[in-house]
Order: sequence, then structure tokens, then C-alpha cells
Amino acid sequence: MSSTRTLIRGGLVITAAEETHADVLIEDGRIAALAAHGSGAAEGWTADRTIDARGKYVLPGGVDAHTHMEMPFGGTFAADTFESGTRAAAWGGTTTIVDFAVQAPGQALREGLDAWYAKADGVCAIDYAFHMIMADVNESSLKEMDLLVQEGITSFKLFMAYPGVFYSDDGRILRAMQRASGNGGLIMMHAENGIAIDVLVEQALAAGRTDPRHHGEVRKVLLEAEATHRAIQLARVADAPLYVVHVSAEEAVAELAAARDKGLPVFGETCPQYLFLSTDNLAEPDFEGAKYVCSTPLRPKEHQAALWRGLRTDDLQVVSTDHCPFCFAGQKELGRSDFSKIPNGLPGVENRMDLLHQAVVEGKLTRRRWIDIACAAPARMFGLYPRKGTIAPGADADVVVYDPDAGQTLSAATHHMAVDYSAYEGKKITGQVETVLSRGELVIDRREFTGRAGHGRFTPRATCQYLT
Amino acid sequence: MSSTRTLIRGGLVITAAEETHADVLIEDGRIAALAAHGSGAAEGWTADRTIDARGKYVLPGGVDAHTHMEMPFGGTFAADTFESGTRAAAWGGTTTIVDFAVQAPGQALREGLDAWYAKADGVCAIDYAFHMIMADVNESSLKEMDLLVQEGITSFKLFMAYPGVFYSDDGRILRAMQRASGNGGLIMMHAENGIAIDVLVEQALAAGRTDPRHHGEVRKVLLEAEATHRAIQLARVADAPLYVVHVSAEEAVAELAAARDKGLPVFGETCPQYLFLSTDNLAEPDFEGAKYVCSTPLRPKEHQAALWRGLRTDDLQVVSTDHCPFCFAGQKELGRSDFSKIPNGLPGVENRMDLLHQAVVEGKLTRRRWIDIACAAPARMFGLYPRKGTIAPGADADVVVYDPDAGQTLSAATHHMAVDYSAYEGKKITGQVETVLSRGELVIDRREFTGRAGHGRFTPRATCQYLT
Amino acid sequence: MSSTRTLIRGGLVITAAEETHADVLIEDGRIAALAAHGSGAAEGWTADRTIDARGKYVLPGGVDAHTHMEMPFGGTFAADTFESGTRAAAWGGTTTIVDFAVQAPGQALREGLDAWYAKADGVCAIDYAFHMIMADVNESSLKEMDLLVQEGITSFKLFMAYPGVFYSDDGRILRAMQRASGNGGLIMMHAENGIAIDVLVEQALAAGRTDPRHHGEVRKVLLEAEATHRAIQLARVADAPLYVVHVSAEEAVAELAAARDKGLPVFGETCPQYLFLSTDNLAEPDFEGAKYVCSTPLRPKEHQAALWRGLRTDDLQVVSTDHCPFCFAGQKELGRSDFSKIPNGLPGVENRMDLLHQAVVEGKLTRRRWIDIACAAPARMFGLYPRKGTIAPGADADVVVYDPDAGQTLSAATHHMAVDYSAYEGKKITGQVETVLSRGELVIDRREFTGRAGHGRFTPRATCQYLT
Amino acid sequence: MSSTRTLIRGGLVITAAEETHADVLIEDGRIAALAAHGSGAAEGWTADRTIDARGKYVLPGGVDAHTHMEMPFGGTFAADTFESGTRAAAWGGTTTIVDFAVQAPGQALREGLDAWYAKADGVCAIDYAFHMIMADVNESSLKEMDLLVQEGITSFKLFMAYPGVFYSDDGRILRAMQRASGNGGLIMMHAENGIAIDVLVEQALAAGRTDPRHHGEVRKVLLEAEATHRAIQLARVADAPLYVVHVSAEEAVAELAAARDKGLPVFGETCPQYLFLSTDNLAEPDFEGAKYVCSTPLRPKEHQAALWRGLRTDDLQVVSTDHCPFCFAGQKELGRSDFSKIPNGLPGVENRMDLLHQAVVEGKLTRRRWIDIACAAPARMFGLYPRKGTIAPGADADVVVYDPDAGQTLSAATHHMAVDYSAYEGKKITGQVETVLSRGELVIDRREFTGRAGHGRFTPRATCQYLT
Repeated sequence: MSSTRTLIRGGLVITAAEETHADVLIEDGRIAALAAHGSGAAEGWTADRTIDARGKYVLPGGVDAHTHMEMPFGGTFAADTFESGTRAAAWGGTTTIVDFAVQAPGQALREGLDAWYAKADGVCAIDYAFHMIMADVNESSLKEMDLLVQEGITSFKLFMAYPGVFYSDDGRILRAMQRASGNGGLIMMHAENGIAIDVLVEQALAAGRTDPRHHGEVRKVLLEAEATHRAIQLARVADAPLYVVHVSAEEAVAELAAARDKGLPVFGETCPQYLFLSTDNLAEPDFEGAKYVCSTPLRPKEHQAALWRGLRTDDLQVVSTDHCPFCFAGQKELGRSDFSKIPNGLPGVENRMDLLHQAVVEGKLTRRRWIDIACAAPARMFGLYPRKGTIAPGADADVVVYDPDAGQTLSAATHHMAVDYSAYEGKKITGQVETVLSRGELVIDRREFTGRAGHGRFTPRATCQYLT
Repeated sequence: MSSTRTLIRGGLVITAAEETHADVLIEDGRIAALAAHGSGAAEGWTADRTIDARGKYVLPGGVDAHTHMEMPFGGTFAADTFESGTRAAAWGGTTTIVDFAVQAPGQALREGLDAWYAKADGVCAIDYAFHMIMADVNESSLKEMDLLVQEGITSFKLFMAYPGVFYSDDGRILRAMQRASGNGGLIMMHAENGIAIDVLVEQALAAGRTDPRHHGEVRKVLLEAEATHRAIQLARVADAPLYVVHVSAEEAVAELAAARDKGLPVFGETCPQYLFLSTDNLAEPDFEGAKYVCSTPLRPKEHQAALWRGLRTDDLQVVSTDHCPFCFAGQKELGRSDFSKIPNGLPGVENRMDLLHQAVVEGKLTRRRWIDIACAAPARMFGLYPRKGTIAPGADADVVVYDPDAGQTLSAATHHMAVDYSAYEGKKITGQVETVLSRGELVIDRREFTGRAGHGRFTPRATCQYLT
Repeated sequence: MSSTRTLIRGGLVITAAEETHADVLIEDGRIAALAAHGSGAAEGWTADRTIDARGKYVLPGGVDAHTHMEMPFGGTFAADTFESGTRAAAWGGTTTIVDFAVQAPGQALREGLDAWYAKADGVCAIDYAFHMIMADVNESSLKEMDLLVQEGITSFKLFMAYPGVFYSDDGRILRAMQRASGNGGLIMMHAENGIAIDVLVEQALAAGRTDPRHHGEVRKVLLEAEATHRAIQLARVADAPLYVVHVSAEEAVAELAAARDKGLPVFGETCPQYLFLSTDNLAEPDFEGAKYVCSTPLRPKEHQAALWRGLRTDDLQVVSTDHCPFCFAGQKELGRSDFSKIPNGLPGVENRMDLLHQAVVEGKLTRRRWIDIACAAPARMFGLYPRKGTIAPGADADVVVYDPDAGQTLSAATHHMAVDYSAYEGKKITGQVETVLSRGELVIDRREFTGRAGHGRFTPRATCQYLT
Repeated sequence: MSSTRTLIRGGLVITAAEETHADVLIEDGRIAALAAHGSGAAEGWTADRTIDARGKYVLPGGVDAHTHMEMPFGGTFAADTFESGTRAAAWGGTTTIVDFAVQAPGQALREGLDAWYAKADGVCAIDYAFHMIMADVNESSLKEMDLLVQEGITSFKLFMAYPGVFYSDDGRILRAMQRASGNGGLIMMHAENGIAIDVLVEQALAAGRTDPRHHGEVRKVLLEAEATHRAIQLARVADAPLYVVHVSAEEAVAELAAARDKGLPVFGETCPQYLFLSTDNLAEPDFEGAKYVCSTPLRPKEHQAALWRGLRTDDLQVVSTDHCPFCFAGQKELGRSDFSKIPNGLPGVENRMDLLHQAVVEGKLTRRRWIDIACAAPARMFGLYPRKGTIAPGADADVVVYDPDAGQTLSAATHHMAVDYSAYEGKKITGQVETVLSRGELVIDRREFTGRAGHGRFTPRATCQYLT
């Protein structure tokens, strides 16, 4: 914790709710006060360190509620460690990640969680928390859920996809939802009908359709919409809330919108890749499409408008990255002759805040909505608010000074993620992170990394704050 | 403007977005700064006046976006003057009203507006602004709209009801919407099919159905839903935003929800009377039902759940009062033998904040949503944000210290509105306004009125802030 | 009436419900019996006249429920007289038309009806009936409705378009619906928001957008959908059935579908021009677009799929022609410099059965659905069933022998309508009427006209047969 | 086959499409001809046997597309044999049943089918056909589907319920649908989420909720709606038609309606028990509720209106019985201490035509719609039309003479089903079967059984006739 006083002068403080011309005073790692520029209160302040934010935005640090550092998948591991991944996150203006601890089938939740504690411990540049992936819902793991909620692991991810790996059938899903309904946990759902998809995968491969683009064709829009609808109905039976991860299809957004119109506690997340990329990328020649293989898959471009609209109408609340990078060389290549063997996942933790700011530049989002979907809503959704996700007295001093006018070009040559390609290679955007503080400490200082592995702490979470 | 420094210590500051344990410093009538309780910044502050808010809420003053002081209707006038009405508003924690200037048919907008400026000038206890009722859409009044927008009158109300009085046909509505689309104005709509309703009124009276409850029966739910749908379609043709006033029917909420799911800039307001009262009140014997005659009418109780849900799902954004009081004696009685002659309107400007807090107590709304629908959203909707509607550095120091635990009983015996009955007579609720500041000046000080007629200023408004 | 026995041997009898290989025996102008080919019953039959229908379809004569012969419009008259128009209808396999008698404002229904009786009397080649256009809904004309229903005029058309001509406001519409609810009449609605459209017309003309294609642009899809929705809501208030004429927009079909899902007695008609033509035709150069000016207007091609789907899902029940031909020379030309002066209407009474058969050939409709929408449903809708619209014992012997394999090219050069152009000039289709009987008499005999002016009789109608 | 000529004189012939005052001539077991009463054609007819139908209805024999004679379930067998069950069917005016042959897991379809051929052979009083229950979808059984379609077994039932018994997972369902898409077969679906239901069953029993009414509570409306939606989506992926059996919940009807509005080939069946009975019956004391245990379960009464509306709007097409009787004594009693052990099923094959006529009497259906949902639609749906389901030249002479005015009281004391209770005990209805012919032979003659075991023939079926 910083014992210094830091003062950020002259910026436009943007939160999900307000745009305020205010100076921000940080004491002991927390936001102590905000005062109007030029007010007596502001003029009276002194500090050990003063950051000049004139002409800049002063933002809460980003909260990326969906990352997979060092994630084992298909016999390999996601390329970013907690060390490299959290450093890259900081470069991108994200100061908290919520990663996924994984229960292996047959294992206790505890085992999985402890393994992930160990991976992250002492190496992170920014704060982190965990969701728990439940791959084996049974009497024992259901009981463990209660303990984890108390420990600050308040969300549990289930999969309707990946039979034989993470898949839970509807009975297990229902039981986990019932338990969550009792203990305040939030069920996160990968909503794709994996049982049906596996039939289509098998048929595609048998017919010689092995290219990456077939990954997008077999994982059909209708099967995402179906699973979304089913998850909602099961949640209604269990009287539990539901958070659907990485929504990519217009029809799935429609299911969420219909549920929300009924007043149900149903939430949805999308990711930058669904907002900016499409099946056109999956169809890139020379196996380049493999770079864009993730599940849910990229969709035809027409779906993007529905996702942007969903973000505006609040039918989608959160943009996370589902950051799960695999190098093209050696990893993505595992699926050269069989798209189903391509490790699923894209790098993105460094790009999220910038890409969404680009949407602001292009008129797709307001500035406040940008901060909402990238900072405040994920923090509230996962019980981190108001410590994380806003700039208000008492909040952690996770602050980004953002230059809205700087130009940059996204590229693997310049990014800080430990992966050999960028999904947005060559894309020119406006806006750039200039300075980042994590609990008052400078992590990025005018585009130099000044942080350190181990600064970041595990952050236990309260339960979902959208339910009260 | 206050030249003193005022400090509000120890309260829980609640805005639409945040709940912050913070001290609030007021300089020169504006919020200068917020600082965490006990922070160095807070501890260092001194002030001329310190208000102890420990155990209390510190709220932005309420914004009532729909009042009719001294409104002429059916040959009589609403019983509250701007003086009595704004004083009552202050008692109820409302620090800004947006009232309606009225263009009479044949008149210029200017004439109507100037008349209302004159009525309000020098007598208001709190700040005020105006919408403009357009009763005569023609080439000349359309041109005047542009001037009014520049003058800070940025919203224009049209009526699909009241043929021969305020009614505009669909062509006039379309023209006004087109003009608003160009000049940034917001069309507010009284959405009932008045042409069809008048047929049913005539038939009801001819059949001897003259009691107040028939007022509710002839103004059918389907005809509110129809007009709401039509207004939305006309707004789409004009590419203009739309704000539907006093939504009372579940089916009308459904029309708004459907429009909003499409991402259209369509907004809805409801009022406390639709949330707390019903056709049961209209059916009260001995002509007591007349007290509850307003349009749109009260609906059967089943509609209330849809309105509360709409407020939670943000398909309705604003709760205003449509405050338009007529005394039972001498005014409501004009319609003893003919419900259509009962002046339309209810008192309410004093009760809104408290009734909505009661909904918080009963679990229907969160505290933040309470402040959103009662303060922030109306301010944003009508271009007053962030001067009004929030507590943030730079905002007007319109602040309410609210005791969430105090009990009170609503009654005409104790209210401050100039009307001889309360629509909520005898209702016991929890929570009460304790102290109110308007631009830093004490208007209510620990439940004594310390304000003065003429403190309140006309406040020009920017255009709707939901559109960017 | 024929006193001869006619036997139609060897054909495939197609009705809305059945496809039967049967011989058809006609006695005294009515269907006496059907017997399976080769059955003892069939073999035993003798007849004065035997028609060989082997390889042919034997169909009920078409019922065109929407024609305007000699219709006055915009200072001119539809080019077909009852004589020429009914002859052309017979050529096209239609044996009954329901035309529209017109009440002029200020006139009694009686006056208008008598004028139309006089126009049709003694000159028609096939049977005819009348709907009544109500241009002036008032106490007197409402009372007349009851009398007309008893006289066999059981349907009444109102207009939400054409202010100042046929337009009725919502109050008049509601009153007429209430009356129909009591007397069994069916309200037919031209559902376009004419008040709003007239604003757009005026604006288009003022801006110099005078070409025929602007006719399509000002009469917006949203304004057809709006009026359709409004008409449905008014019908619900009146507890009356509703028939919407010439539906052309996908969004209007959606309104009908939603109403029908609720079980409401709401019906819809479309016309061949909306199924086969589009705004591409309206945009034809050299004022050729004027040939396609009708209201509702032709829509962009994308709407066609929704109309075909609506016909398949029974959200649309009837295909009529809205036959209202104006010659290009001298009539359509009245609007050369102002699209609003182009007489509204297309020729089509001769083409309907063939165009819909073409849809059968193209797989858009089944054969039975073809006969349903063109014969049975209009007969039921307007109280003519089972005398008209089917082939069953007891029915009028209005029979078409149809060659499903004959090719033909539609052209003004060969058609029999009294108009100087064809809306389908040059279109090649498969299938052709070979022989037509009206009440057992040959009107078309192997493609020679053998009928006579005056054979056709006025046919009083029962009330709508979809309501019991 | 009858070599006699039978003549039915003087009745009102009612089909799904027509009501015709006609005499019906039967030659050689088929309908030879219909002629108008009193026509020369009719007058000329002579016959070996003449049935006087004056004042009566002449109907096509009923087609019950969902029966389970001698069905093994839960260790016991449905109480009606093919002999007793088809005789009872005939008493009730049903002349064709489509029963279900059952593939046991591990078995070939062939084995199951042959077993059912053997059960029915030589014992049926009326004609019969088979659907095939697929309990084991695998490469081999998928191939067999093609052969069965050619053999006249053109529909295949799958279960989303009953895990471990008949249950197929979504992959198997998809594969079967894909196969059906290719071979013309129709997939019939028991749409309940059995995996989730089994969790709720286990929880209910563990909590001591063992009474029959809990059967209705655990099999939740939402889980029927969910499965219905899922089945529709899978059918869309497979591009296959779908027939959902025994729809009981309003929300499931809504799923079907939404699919049909899109023009999808999705069909729905309901049963008399859902139309006339409710959870009130399941809650009858003294274990009487067990009589009403079937799946999908009876629903709260409010759902009935949606089912009737669905039948009127054609969102439901067929009413079958799901006849699967178990005696109260000895069979239903198996579940005295555990509702999940109660054999699922109700008797009804004898009551269907009468109960639906009662709906005609009560104004819920028209006479034609009665015949449609009970005769014509099931025949078309399952490829039996027009041999079965109508009265038209060439059709099988399966004819019912029905007395619409006779009164009767439903009771186990008088019914002919081999089961010790009636689900409608004591219910008084109007209308009764008087005489029944099957292919021209008298099976019931003025309420005496004159048929014989073995008259009924296996009837191979064409593919679904709603798809062309």
C-alpha cells in the first residue's frame, strides 16, 4: 500500500455514471477525495506526487472478468502466465482480472482452486480474483460451493459445451443453480449445445471439412441460442441468477433481452472479438483462420450490430476478453488437419479498453457506457464494487490516465502479451493508456512499465451486486 | 448564491450510481468536493456551517419533471400556485420542477411561455424550468420551437387525447417530431387515443354511467397501448426521440419495451399514483372516486407489477408526479353528475420522494434506482445534468439529508400542498426529508421551512442527454 | 339456370381441402354429385354435355373479393365497366366478384348502393356481389348498416387513408365497428395512416420529388404497420372482427400474426401485385412507374417472402386483385408532374388465378392452398360459401377446367381487360384456364368466350363464415 | 372388403372443410360418390343396405394417432390389448389408430416392429398403423429408419424425458432428425427435460413429497417449454419437420406458435385430458390422483384456454388420446408410496370424439374444426390421407353416423376399455356415436358391436402430407 499522497490534476474523471472535471486525491492507496478543478478544496491540496492529467481522461482501472492465464486446453497451455498476462493487462489499462480456477473431473474444487492460487501467487502485476470452473458437479462439490462463496470465490462456471471435458448435463446444471440460489453464488454459463455440436463436428471431419472456417459453421447460431434459452429456463426453475459468457449470436442476445424484459436476473457478456472480428477472419487462407478459433465462434458480420445494440440497451452488461492466447506456431498448428484440434482462444487482455474506446470514437458507445461495460459493470457483477470499477472516495486507487487523442497501431510487434500474433494486427485506433495506478502505485508511468510481479493481490469477492 | 462553505459530515451519499460514505463540501452554492469519511482530505476541511448527517442519507435533490402549477383545466385552475407548489416540493425533497407552459390554440408559443415566466417569476422556493405544451402545431409554432430550444425550453408536449383542447392529429405530431429531430428538442406525448375515448365517453354518459369509476372504464388500456405504439411509429418515421408521459398500463409498458429492445430512443415516465393507487380508488363511494380522476387513468391493481418491473428493467426511466391538484370541494365536485367534467389531476409533488423510498423499504427498488428515477434520470432526460440530479464536484448544491428510519403518516392535515385532500390519506411510510439545500442555501432545516419565495430561479435546459 | 345435365369426366377435382379423382355431375346449375372415376356410380351417369377433363384440374371458379369496376377516382373512372371487367374475370377463371359500392360523403348508403346496382345490372358475365364503402359514418349511415346486412351487403370498407375523400377518423371507425359487432357485418380496412402520409406527400412535392417512385417512399411501411395495429386495437375495443385489405408490408403481416396468435378474429388480404411486383417497378424510367401506382404501394422485394409466408401460415387468408385499372394514356398521365395525381390502381382481375398457379409451379404454395386463398377463403370470408368457392354437392356449378401444363405469356396484346397495359407484360407462366362454367352455363369453352352480358346475377351474401 | 353397395341417406356430411347435405354411396369398401339430397343423381341410386342418417351427422371415422395398446411401462403393461382397445375405439367412433412399436435399447427397430406386428395381427376391430419408438439411436438403427419409411412406418418417436429408458440425448435426436430430413420421416417428440425433471423427482421424494400431485409439480411447465424450444431448434439445424406430442402447457404452445409464425414445419398435438382435466384431479385425495398421472402431466386449469385457442388458431393441429390405460387396482397402486412408480397413462381412446363434440356443443370448436383435429389432420400428418380422415370419392368407407342430440354419461360402468376407471366418471355430454363402418363393413350398428377381431388391417402410411 502506498503511504504517499498522489494528486491527479486537471483531468476529466469518467465513471459509468458521471463525467466530472475534478482533481483526484489519493491517500494510502485509496481514493480519498474528488474536488472540482479550481475549487478552494482542490486548491488547498498538496501531494507527494502530482500527475498532470490536463486534456486526459481519468478512468477507473479496467476490470476484465474473463481471462484464462496458463489455462490447460487440448494438451497445451494458454501462452500467458499470470506474470506476463497481468503485465499486459496493465499496459492495456486493466487493473483487475478475474481468472478461472479449474476443477478437473474427479477432483475437489479445493484442489483446483489451490492450484490456481499457487500459479498466481507472487507474480501478478495487478489485482486478481477467481471464478471456479466446475467440471464435476456432485454432492461433494456442491457443498464446497458454499465454502468458496465465503472465501470470496462467488461465481461458478459451467459448460453446456465440451462433452467429456467440462460439460455438465442439465441435471448437474440445475443442481448447481439451486445451490447458487441458496448461497448467493452466480452461475456463469458457456451456452452452446455441445452434444449437438459434437455430432456436427464429427460429420464435418468425416466429410473432409477440416479447415478453421468449419469451426464456425458447425458451432451454429441456433445452438448457441438454444443453449442460452435452456440455461435461462433452468435458472428460472432454480430461482437463480444467470450470467452467460461470451455471447456472440444475435439470436442469443434476443433470448437474453426477452428474459430481461420479464425482469429476470439474467446477464450477458460479450467480447471484443465478437464486436470487431467475424467469420471473414476464420476464413482467412493458409490456416491463418486458426488464429481466430475460439468458442463461441466468431459470427458473420451481421451479428455485430446486434451485439453493439445489446450493449447500448443493457441487454448485455459486460465486455470481457476471454483472453486465452495460444501461439500460432506450435499451438494453433496442432489443428492443421483438423479444426477440432485447434486450441480454442484468442489473446486480448491488453486490447479491450482501447478497442472499446475506439467504439466511443466511432459513435457506437458513450464514454460513460464504455467505462460501465469495461469497469463498473464487471465489478458489480462479481462483487468487487465499489473497491474496483469506479473512482469515488473510498475506492481502491486503481486509476488510468488515458489520452483520448493518441494514435496507435495494434500489433504483435508492440504488444506485451506472450503470444506470437495479434488478432487485430495493423488495426489503427485512437486513444491510448498513458499512466496506470494500482492501489495508488504506478504500474505504468507515461508508457513505461514501473510495476512489479507480486504487487497484485488476490481479491476476495462479495456476491453479485446486481441482485439487491 | 451562498458565499459560505457548508460541510455535510458523516452521511451516506447516494447517487444513481454510487453509495459512498463521504463528507460533502459545498462552496459558493456548488458541490466543491467529496472526501471519504476520516480521510486526511476530509479531516482538513473547515466550514461556516456543518450539517451532521450521521445515520442519514445525503441525496441529490429531487427533480420532478412533470408538474402543473396554476394549470387552467376545464374552467378552473390547479390549486397550487408556483409559490405554494414549490414550497411543498421542497418539503418533499424536490429541488427542481419542470412545469408546463401552455400555448393556447391560436396563440404563439411565445405568448404562452411569457405568461408562465410571469407566473413563476419571483415566487418559487426552488429552481424551476419549463416544457412547452403545443396546442397548435403550425408553420409559425414549428419555427418558434427552434428559438425555444435555444432559450432552454427543450421539450415539447403533444396530446393524442383531449380533442378540441390540446389534441394534435398525427400529421401535426409528425411535423413537430420532424422539427424536434432537427433542433434537438424532445417530444413528450400524452398517449391515449382521445378520438376513440370521446366516443366511449359519450356512450357512457348517454347510458347513465356518470360515476367517477367510468372515467377509468372508458379510457381503455388498449387505447393507451394503441396511442403509445402509434407515437413510437411516428417517431421512427421522423427519426426523433420520444418521451411518453404518465404511462399507466402494462400493455403500454410492453410497447416501450419492444421499442427499446430495438434500440430506439424511446423513453417512458410513470407516476406514484399508478404505482400505489388503482381503479379500486376510483370506485370509492360517495363521489370520493373523483379525488383519483386523472388521465391516463388509474388502472386495475394488476398493472402495478408491470410498472415496477418496467422501472427495474429501465423500460421506464422516470417517475414524475403530474402534480395537478384540484380541491375536492368546489373543483372535483364540478363533475358530480358527469365524470367527464371532473378536473383531471392529483396532488403529489410533496409525496414523490417519500413514496419511492417506501418502495425501497419494501424491496421493490434499490436505493440507487430510487435516486435514478427520481433525480438523475429526469435531470438527464431534460438537459439539467449534472447541475441537477447528482452529487458530484461542480454540481449545484441541491442536497437532501434524508432520515431513512423516521416514520410518517401522509395526510392532508399535515401536507403543504394547497389542496383539501391527500391521495394517500393515512398511509404510513418509513423515511422522511430532514434538511434540504437549494444551491447551498437551507430551504428546509431539520423540518422547518427556512426558504423564501423568489430564491428559486428559472433554469434553462440543454437538450436531452440520453441521446449522445 | 341450366336445365341440362353436364358431366365433367376424368379430371382431378381440387378444392381447398381435397384433391379427388372424380367425375362431377351438374344438374340445374348446381353440383349434383361427385363420383370416383370408374366407380359404378360414375359409370352409370349420362349427361347432355360431357366435358373431357382428363389431364386437367377441375376447380371451383375463382372468387375475387376486391374489385373496382367503373370506380371514380381522382376525377376519372376505372377503365373496366362491369361488362368488360366481368368478362375479363371469366377469361381468368374467376366466376364471382365482390365489388365496392361507394357512399359519397353526405349521401346515404342507399344512394350509393343503388347507383352500383344500376351499373352492374344486366351487364355482368358472371355473378357479383357488393361490399359498401362508407365515406360518411354518422348516426344515419350506422343505422343503414343493419338494413344492408339484411339485404346481403354484409361488409363495410373504411379508410384510414385519403383524408378529405374516404377517410374516417378513429371515432367513426370505432362506431362502425361497434355497429358491425352487433349486426354481424365485417369491417374491411384500408390500413395506412393517411394523415401522416399526406404530410410526407406535401413535403416530397415541395422538395421536387414528383416521380412515381416517391409514391412508394412517402407511403411508408411503418405507417401501414401502424394503421394495421391501430385498426386491430379498435376492433378489440369494439369486440368486432376485422379484415385488412391489400396488405403489402412485412411489418403489417407481423401485426396480423400477433393478433391471430392471440386468437383474435383478424384477417388479412394481399394481392398479386405485392407478391410479384416491387418498388423496382415503381422506379421504372420514363414515367412507366406510374403503371404500378396503387395504395398500399408496392414494397421493396424483400417484403414478398413475408407475404408468401403469411399465405402459407394462414396469417393472410385471401388473395384478391384490388382490380382498378387506369389506362396509361390519358389517365395515369394525369400525374406526370405530380405523383399524387396519378390515379391509384392496377389491372389484374384476369391474372389472379394464373399468377397464383404459377406460385404452385414454383413451389410457393400447394395446389389446395391455391384454391383456398383464391376461391374458398374469400367465399367463406364474405358469406358466399358453400355456394361459391368449392365443388361439393349443392354448390353452384361455377367450375373451371384448368390446364396445368399450358404455357402462356401475359400481355396487354392478348388480355381482355379494357386497359392499355399489363402490369405483367411479357411474363411467361405455366397453366391456363380452358373452360369456365357459371352456374352450369359455359362462359368460356375451350378458350372461346361463350358467355353473355347479363348472365351474372347479384348475389346477396351471408355474414362472415369464419366467426362461427 | 365389402362387395355390397351401402347408401347413407339424408345426413349432414361433415368433413374438415365442408358441411354438405348429401347422400353417400359406398361401393366395395370405398366411398364411391356423394350426391346432393334429392338430386337426380341421388334419387337414382339403389343399394344393398341403406342407412337412414336423417337428423344425424355423417363423419369420417376418427383417426387416433397416439395409442399404446399392451404397452410395457414400469414393469407392467397397458391394460388394453389390441383387441379390446380397437373395439373400444370403434365404440367411440375411431376407425384407425396409429400405435407405437417399441425398440428396446440394444434391439433393432426390426425386432420391436415385428413384435408389435405380431401383437396386433388378426385381433383388431379397426385398421391400424404404427409409429416407431426409437430408444436406441445408433448407426444401425438410423439405417433401419429408411427401410421402415419404405414399409409404411414413416414416423419415429424420440424422448427427451425418461433417462435410462427411452431418453435420447440431443446428439441422437439431431442424428435421427437429419436422417428423417433425408428419408421423409417425421420425428415425434416427447418434449420434457427429463434430466432436470429427474433431479426434481429425487428431491421431492427425498423430502417426503410422494403423493400423486407432486408428479405434476416436478414436471414443470418451464421444462416442457424448454424441451419444446430445444426440439424446434434441433429440427431447424437438421432442416427437418417436427411433431410435438401431448402438448399440455401454455408456454409450450407459445413456442410452437412462434415457430409456426416463422413458417417452420413444426406441429403440435394435445389430448383430451389436457383440455378437460387439471392438477385439481391430480390432487384428489385417497390416492385417486394416481388415475390422472401421465406425462406430460395435467396442468393448472388456466392452461386449458391456451390449448383450446391453439386448436382454433392451428398452432395445435391434432388431438390424440395417448391412450395408455392402467387399472387403478394393482397397477396405479404400484406408486402408493412413491409417485414416480405410478405407471404413466390414462384411458381415453373411446372418449375422444365425444369429448371434442362436447367442445362443439360448448362453442369452443366449430364442427369442421372438430373433424379436422380428430380425423383429417392426423390422417394428413401421418400419411393416411385421403384414404382415412375424410369422406370423398375414393376414400376408404370409414364412416360414423353420429347423433348430435343424444345424451350420455361417461363411466367405467358402461365404457368398453379394459380398465377399471374412467378419467371422466360421471361427466354428462351431448352427442353419441350411433353407427360405424370400417371399409364399408358395419362395426357398430345402432350401438351394437357387429365388428370382429381381425377385420382391422395394418395400414402402411405415406410420409407426412403437410410438407408439400
